This record gives sequence, C-alpha cells and structure tokens, in this order.
Amino acid sequence: MRLSRYFLPVLKETPAEAQIVSHRYMLRAGMIKQASAGIYSWLPLGFKILRKIENIIHEEQARAGHIAMLMPTIQSADLWRESGRYDAYGAEMLRITDRHERDMLFTPTAEELITDIFRANVSSYKDLPLTLYQIQWKFRDEIRPRFGVMRGREFYMKDGYNFDLTKEDALHAYNRHLVSYLRTYERMGLQAIPMRADSGPIGGDDTHEFLVLAETGESEVFYDSEITDLKFGDREIDYSSRAQCQAVLEEFTSRYARTDETHDEALFNQIPEERRRVARGIEVGQIFYFGTKYSEPMGATVTDAEGNKVPVHMGSHGIGVSRLLGAIIEASHDDKGIIWPEGVTPFHAGIVNLKQGDAEADAACEALYASLTALGLEPLYDDTTERAGAKFATMDLIGLPWRITVGPRGLKNGVVELTSRRTGESEELPPEAAVAKIAAIYGVAKA
Amino acid sequence: MRLSRYFLPVLKETPAEAQIVSHRYMLRAGMIKQASAGIYSWLPLGFKILRKIENIIHEEQARAGHIAMLMPTIQSADLWRESGRYDAYGAEMLRITDRHERDMLFTPTAEELITDIFRANVSSYKDLPLTLYQIQWKFRDEIRPRFGVMRGREFYMKDGYNFDLTKEDALHAYNRHLVSYLRTYERMGLQAIPMRADSGPIGGDDTHEFLVLAETGESEVFYDSEITDLKFGDREIDYSSRAQCQAVLEEFTSRYARTDETHDEALFNQIPEERRRVARGIEVGQIFYFGTKYSEPMGATVTDAEGNKVPVHMGSHGIGVSRLLGAIIEASHDDKGIIWPEGVTPFHAGIVNLKQGDAEADAACEALYASLTALGLEPLYDDTTERAGAKFATMDLIGLPWRITVGPRGLKNGVVELTSRRTGESEELPPEAAVAKIAAIYGVAKA
Repeated sequence: MRLSRYFLPVLKETPAEAQIVSHRYMLRAGMIKQASAGIYSWLPLGFKILRKIENIIHEEQARAGHIAMLMPTIQSADLWRESGRYDAYGAEMLRITDRHERDMLFTPTAEELITDIFRANVSSYKDLPLTLYQIQWKFRDEIRPRFGVMRGREFYMKDGYNFDLTKEDALHAYNRHLVSYLRTYERMGLQAIPMRADSGPIGGDDTHEFLVLAETGESEVFYDSEITDLKFGDREIDYSSRAQCQAVLEEFTSRYARTDETHDEALFNQIPEERRRVARGIEVGQIFYFGTKYSEPMGATVTDAEGNKVPVHMGSHGIGVSRLLGAIIEASHDDKGIIWPEGVTPFHAGIVNLKQGDAEADAACEALYASLTALGLEPLYDDTTERAGAKFATMDLIGLPWRITVGPRGLKNGVVELTSRRTGESEELPPEAAVAKIAAIYGVAKA
Repeated sequence: MRLSRYFLPVLKETPAEAQIVSHRYMLRAGMIKQASAGIYSWLPLGFKILRKIENIIHEEQARAGHIAMLMPTIQSADLWRESGRYDAYGAEMLRITDRHERDMLFTPTAEELITDIFRANVSSYKDLPLTLYQIQWKFRDEIRPRFGVMRGREFYMKDGYNFDLTKEDALHAYNRHLVSYLRTYERMGLQAIPMRADSGPIGGDDTHEFLVLAETGESEVFYDSEITDLKFGDREIDYSSRAQCQAVLEEFTSRYARTDETHDEALFNQIPEERRRVARGIEVGQIFYFGTKYSEPMGATVTDAEGNKVPVHMGSHGIGVSRLLGAIIEASHDDKGIIWPEGVTPFHAGIVNLKQGDAEADAACEALYASLTALGLEPLYDDTTERAGAKFATMDLIGLPWRITVGPRGLKNGVVELTSRRTGESEELPPEAAVAKIAAIYGVAKA
C-alpha cells in the first residue's frame, strides 16, 4: 500500500477522552473512531489488524478440529426465556422491539441459540463430539463504556460451544480449547496466563480466564512467578490425544494463578515469598465447562450406545477479538507509539522515502516495494512529501515492526537502513539484503 | 474435511415454509437455519460459502484501489436526524433505545456515518480520490420477510462510498465500481446485468442495479438479448484509466436493459422484435452517484487547489452478500440440488467411498484426500458408512462441482470415477489423473 492512496488519519494531539495508552494510540494511529459511546468504527488500519487476528483464530480453531459457523446478532427473546436468562441478564442486554412488537435482543452470547441448533439437528451419540464456533459482533449495554475497545458496547468476539456425550469428553474439549488458546495468543505475540476464574452469568464448575499482564488491566491478579517462564512454543500437539491436551493443561494451570475474584490468600502464601506476584491483568478469553446447565432445561439430548436419551455435556469458550487489539497495545508499546508483534502487524514493513521526487530514491523505493510484494508481503510505502521527521513519527506511532529508510546519501553507497521498531537498532545494508532479512523474519521464501 | 467430523445436517424433507428453490436447497443442504422471522444462522456449509464470497469481494475491491474498513451495526440516531433520514426511513428501520434512553438504530446503510468520518478527517483535495467500503451486517425490518436469505431482515452487505473533488472524478469512481462488480460477479459464476434503475431512499441521479436473470426474481426486467452475450472475461483493466473504465461502462450499458421501475415501453419497442426480452431478475447490487446530497447538508467539504471550500461529490455502491448465495442457487441448480460454480464452491471436490471399511478403498480415498490437500485444495471426504445412493444424493444436494467415486471394483482396474455435477458426465481414470484434472480445473500447480 502506498500511503498517498491510503486512509490513515493520524492525530497529532492526544484525545482528551482516552485514559489508557491503547485507547490513545488507537485513536492517534487512525485505527478507530468513536461512533457513539462505547461504539467504534474500525478505520482501515484498525480493520486490517482485526482481520489478521480473526484469521489467526480461524486457523487455530480449524487446527483443533472446531467448525466455523455464524449466528445472527439479533435474536428472539423466546429462547432466552426458555433458559431463564432473559430476565436474569439485567440492563446490559440490549432489548429491542421489532415492528410487529416482538421482543428481540442484540446477542451478548449464544448458548441458547447454539443449543437450539444442536437439538434440532443432532440426536445420536454417533454425531459427537462436536465443537462449533463463530466470530461475530456482540453487544453489552455497559452503563459506563470506557477504555476504547477494551470495554466497548459493540464488540467482536469468538464464541465456541462443545457438545459431548460424557463429562470426560467435555473436559477433553475444555483442554483442547485451553491448548488452542495458548497457541492463538502466542501467535499474536501475547503471553496470556490461564487463571482459575469465576463463572459469572454463563455458569458452570470449571472455568479459566486468560489474562495478559499489563499495568492498566482491570483485574488484580496473583500468581507464582514461575508461570511467566512457560511457553507453548512450536511444540507439535495432537488435539485428539487426551493425554497430550491434559498434560498441557496441567503444565499451565498447576501453579497458583488467580484473579481477585477467586484469590485465596492462604494458598497464595504457600508459594515461596520471592515467587509471589501481585499485578494487574487484562482478560482476553475465558473457557467454561458447564455440563448440562443448558442441555437439560432446553432438551438437548442424544441417544447413547445403549439407547438411552441423555443430555449432552457442554462448555463454551470465548476470545475477546476486538479487545485483543487493545490488550496487545497495552502489552507492547513505548512512548512513541505501538510496537506490533510480527504475527499481527498490519503491514510487514514500512518504506520511508527521505526524498520523494528524487529519481534514484523513488526508484529504489519502488524496487523494494516490488520485491517485498513479490514475496507475498505487504509493505506500507510512505510516498508522501512530508519531511523525514514526520514520516518517522508516523511509522513509530503506527508501530510496524520493521522500517526501511531510503535516501540519496545511502544509495550513493549502495545501502538502505533497516530499523527494528522494538529495539530501535538500525543497520545499513544493500536493498536486496534488507529484503532477504525481512523475508527470513516472516518465514517467506525468496522467489 | 471428513464428513464424519463435519456438521452437515441435511434434510430429507422439503421444508414447507420455503417457497423458492434457493431457500429450499439452503435449508435442505444444511446451509442455514431460521433463528426467527427473516433472521438466519449460517451453518458451517453456508458460512463457508459466505466467507468465500466475502473474500472475492475483498480481492476485487482491493484491485480497484478501494480501502476496507468497518462501521458498527448499532448507530446513534443523531447523524440520521442531521441528514433528515431518521424520520423519512420508515418502519423498516430497526429503532432501539439504550439503557440511557438514547435513540439508536441498527444500520440499514451507512452514508451518514461514513460522511461523518470523512468530514472529521479529510480537509484537502490532496487526500482525494478516496473510496472506503465495508462488508457488514445490516438490518431492515421487513414487514413480511420471505424467500430465505433473499429477503431477510438481518443481511450481510458490502457498501462502499467514494469521495471525489469533482463530478467527473466521482463518475470515474462510479465506472470503477461498475467494472469491479462485473468482475466480482463473473468470478462467482454469475452473469449480472447492469440495468438503469431508480434511486429510492439513497437518492441521486445516476444509478444502475445489477440483476441476475432467474424465474423467481422479484423484479420484472426488459432487455435487449444482445446484452447476455457480453462477458467481461479475463481482460486486463487499469482502474486508474478513465478511458478504460468509461469504455466498459458504455459497452455494458449502451443496450436497453431496465427494471419495471424505469422501463420505457417506447424505447424498448425500438429494439428489433426478435431481440426484445421480458424476464425476471434478482437484484444483487446497485451503484449510485448522488453528488453532494449528503456532503452539503453534513458539511463534508475539502479545500480545492484555489483555496475554496467545496462539498465533495459522493456515490455509494452495494453488493448484497448474503443474498448472493440465494441468487447463485436460483441461477445454478437442478432437481437434485445445488450446482456451485467453481469460484464459490465450499469444497473443491467430493470423495465418495463406496465401501467404507474396505482397506483398499479406504487407503485410496486417504491418498486422494492427501493429494488434493497438498495442492491447497479442500476436499470433502464422505467417510461415513451410509449406502452409496445416500452418499450420492447428499453430494448432489450440496452441489460440489466435482466428485471422485472410489470403489473396490474400479480399484481392481486401477481407476476411480470423476463426475461433473453440472453435466453428470463421468469418466474412469487413475487416481493421479483425477487429481491432475481437478488441479487443472482450479488452476493450481501440482506440487
């Protein structure tokens, strides 16, 4: 993309309403614009990252054997009356009356609708196990929306639902989700720690929240410092193996890690003092096993091998997709702007032309642009006539992990400058070497 | 995907509520399920096709230089009061009151919000031309929703908006959209004819609807039969060339083609009688040029080269994404089920194992599955123990364009059967030849 043809309305001033750094940078970098309280338009840069995150989630869900679908945003109140949650949900549910005076709502979650789909279509244990998920817009009419996309009213969420014959099968689904979430967050450059949590309005016995450590987190968290040394890494996992998934669960949840909701001071104090940590965290996902809480009242049963009708065991599993952009920024920024991890960066590299209009500089930039594009990478080429300082400030603000700076002086010596946004370190090297280095970083083969 | 692990709830019975073939087949093929009147869940097969269509649109919009973003579904009524459309829109607008008693609505279109984003961020002619678009869920509270996704209440739509300094620039944007839409529909295997249309509540002078001919179409259409011979084909187009885009517009709109709303009997009768056609069509898109209709009242101005503040010239351009699935089926089916064009098929080929459990047949199917997958293609392997007739019926119903049938008898002779869903023709050939043929059809290189 050439910046002159893009829509990147960066702001020089820090918007007064933004209290936390992710909100400030998302507004300043032209990623979002508030449409009304807690409701945002996703400008091109923000949308591009949202879509990258969405794609990572789709890929990791497919890897775990989960199946994508989509449920509508507007649902009838009937199913919610059946489960008893229509009245219980409170003022955060956006209630709507349609032209025929029917009670509708903007869905905050979809246990009822997915259970309805299941009971209408599945009747035999032979069709299990089954895990369906969607990535869809949700609405929660927060009384005081704040922190930008971190606590918005309209938000994008991945919600998945598993249907299993037995509790053991459902706990395997639970573990599979835990594993796939660890992989998902790591691909986004995030360390998200599974912490024992409270089940809240979803209900259920087993539940873990995934928290990203950040000073601005809304939750106080208590954990054993050993937990931050754990990495999922690039290990191979067979999602159909109960033993493998269970082992990962045990590895990542055996140490103390809880939010204030479930914190147990006595247990915490059993950790050696030097490993006790109290910090703040941002919740970016949660997994639940709730057994037959919905299947029993809603009649979601299957016939088992002996011919008995039994309610299925269920769980639900969510990732806060839109809020992840905020969480990543909270975890990865400096005083100049955002620092995108390579896995989610909107553009793989920026190209800054120090002397737009200079024939040699222009040609070198075009050649870099063509080389990177031919590799399947997306560069953002600042081809405007802004001065160098302003170009650097914009690149730093929007946070592309790599920047290639091209100027007449370097070109005389046959070099360009490659700069890491994270370390700030630069090196001079021939343009082809810069392309090769970026190709290696992103793991793409040179054509 | 292995069918035994997929969620494909096909129905044997034809649902009574479905009046048209696309609605019947979408329900029977397990693509959608009604959640409430005019509101559907997209089951895995339906969602997969929806996503393919969405990706084609994104690719073609990018090719035309248009920039993707996303606006929220719930918007404040304020902007709609500013444009005067809040009261004018009528009962089809889903109006909502939030917990703070603010008037909100589920957006049926987004001229107001995009104009607001534009006026807040763009002030110079140097930032033009600019075309922004989104693919987002919309709501239209139809009094009598029907025909499945063809006239639903919650629907998925691509809506794009161009901002230009002059009328001439805006007409070039209009032409660019016409060209990109022709390409888009052809990639989906559709012939969509641009017809002079009525502007309705969007307003404006110039507008064309794109109609797919189908007996069940909601509009009566009148056209010169020569128009159906036109193909965009694989010609190269430079979207920045006004002359090229204008030439395509003229080629595709110079012959008579109108809907009943704009039909002119006298003009129609000037066509030689043998070329006059009266038929029915399904609207799958519409493009508008409406000049300063929104920019003037909403103050969306830029400073031109002479320093004058001028309102920008705008247009908006829509594709009915969810309705396209219905339109494609209406245009491409037989009495056994759907026939997906290769460009949008949910799976590239079906593999039917005639004797699941037979070691040789199973191994041959697995090898085909692995070969196709290695090519980057997605097969659907019916690995269930259903009888052959039921497997064929399901494959015919869901409409994959190619089927490979594998059985012990053929394998003894070293062959499998490759069947075209469209023609019904089969040929026997060695498994590797079947894979090579499918690879050639989809234009993928054998690894």
